[in-house]
Amino acid sequence: MTEASGPEAGPATEPAAEPATELRVWAPDGLPEIVAGDDLVTLVVDVLRADAVGDPSRRLVDGDVVVLTSKVVSKAEGRQVAADDREQAITDETVRVVATREHPGGVTRIVENRLGLVMAAAGVDASNTPDGTVLLLPLDPDASARALRAGLRAAFGVQVGVVVSDTAGRPWRQGVADLAIGAAGLQVLEDLRGQVDTFGRALTMTVAAVADEIASAAELVKGKATGRPLAVVRGVGRHVTAEDGPGARSLVRVGPDDMFRQGSAEAYAQGWKDALESEPGR
Amino acid sequence: MTEASGPEAGPATEPAAEPATELRVWAPDGLPEIVAGDDLVTLVVDVLRADAVGDPSRRLVDGDVVVLTSKVVSKAEGRQVAADDREQAITDETVRVVATREHPGGVTRIVENRLGLVMAAAGVDASNTPDGTVLLLPLDPDASARALRAGLRAAFGVQVGVVVSDTAGRPWRQGVADLAIGAAGLQVLEDLRGQVDTFGRALTMTVAAVADEIASAAELVKGKATGRPLAVVRGVGRHVTAEDGPGARSLVRVGPDDMFRQGSAEAYAQGWKDALESEPGR
Repeated sequence: MTEASGPEAGPATEPAAEPATELRVWAPDGLPEIVAGDDLVTLVVDVLRADAVGDPSRRLVDGDVVVLTSKVVSKAEGRQVAADDREQAITDETVRVVATREHPGGVTRIVENRLGLVMAAAGVDASNTPDGTVLLLPLDPDASARALRAGLRAAFGVQVGVVVSDTAGRPWRQGVADLAIGAAGLQVLEDLRGQVDTFGRALTMTVAAVADEIASAAELVKGKATGRPLAVVRGVGRHVTAEDGPGARSLVRVGPDDMFRQGSAEAYAQGWKDALESEPGR
Repeated sequence: MTEASGPEAGPATEPAAEPATELRVWAPDGLPEIVAGDDLVTLVVDVLRADAVGDPSRRLVDGDVVVLTSKVVSKAEGRQVAADDREQAITDETVRVVATREHPGGVTRIVENRLGLVMAAAGVDASNTPDGTVLLLPLDPDASARALRAGLRAAFGVQVGVVVSDTAGRPWRQGVADLAIGAAGLQVLEDLRGQVDTFGRALTMTVAAVADEIASAAELVKGKATGRPLAVVRGVGRHVTAEDGPGARSLVRVGPDDMFRQGSAEAYAQGWKDALESEPGR
């Protein structure tokens, strides 16, 4: 394998001082509590500018990726609704119910939402919002990412990537992890097909979900309970693109390729029902 | 919320020069191609020692986390088998078939393997191995992590965490991401239950899969096609523990809590079959 064709070959935009073998991730302080109507792009620019005054090495450069928690995007968009309307809000956000689970407090619905994301409660969130309210996911996180990217370019003259992140559970794994629900200027999937390993054999795990891994890395410094919904990831410049690109929507896999379109119990019950109905004379 | 009780409060072992709001991840070069019987711990120690000569800031300190790709652990354990035996090897590693999918090249089995991991082909890997062979997952990745941790403590006198990582697909998402299949000295799940957000409300997404997020962050600098299966993550010292802890096995969620115990098609077919058999007189 030649280094030039390998995934380590950075684009010309990557600063020489930041080799692709090293990553630096930081979470600037100072973003105020966001409310509906806030100009989020300006607020983020202000925070990043102030942060770089305190530490000049944090000045944004080409190839950096800015990660923003979706919650603050939702708040700026006024996506808060009254908690009394939570179940209706989940229904409104739902394209398709994947699975349901009863528990002492009610029923959790795992659904595919209008963004194509499969999430508990459709991604509707009841934490980090004022009492009596819940928060819906942003209207169009890819568009929000593009807008922030344009604002950062205008303010700092840099070509960065942007990720809007959210938190989700995963089948078969305990705990939640962050993933990308919006993206701009970023190769969200790194296609390694055609590349070979050190033995010259084709790689089998061929498409890496780079944007999700960046969201997870950022989460390690942002934290869930704190007021730091913003992080910068430096060292992934080889994934930053000139175009805004297809965004995080291209990370969604639903439809015919989805082998887990229904929860096991739901699919089993459907099979049972259909079998009985297949012979109406019974 | 007081800062002292928040997740940002680092243990005393964390170096003051590395605030928890900043993460640094690097992938040292120089680990040789691993073959069966190699003393992997000594080889990793040698690589880390040489790397710190080139860059003293990379000298391991308390609170660092060392991430090692499972592939090199498997190789040191001699877990290569002849490619002709691949299907049998997958069967041997399988506890339970979750789903199967036919494709032009044959049938992919997604199974729960003996480590509790749900993976395509049980995690048996056909890349980055010599021609004619495939590689099984390590026998006991948590034990491998503990051994490496002990070796690093002996060599450098530091208390670090260790993650053994592997790559897996995810339902509903395109692309693969790295996760932790072995761990030692690390709080693999950060339990935020009882913590409150900035509004004083209990956090709803309450358990973060820290070890998986660390594995994903490390993957961004290791890369898949290259000979850099080793990374160091600095800045997550608040998750490094004095005890080896329960390991990555505790990240596994199978059994009654698993709502995706079977693929939708498999569960549907089972329901259909059981319905017809429920009335043997048909």
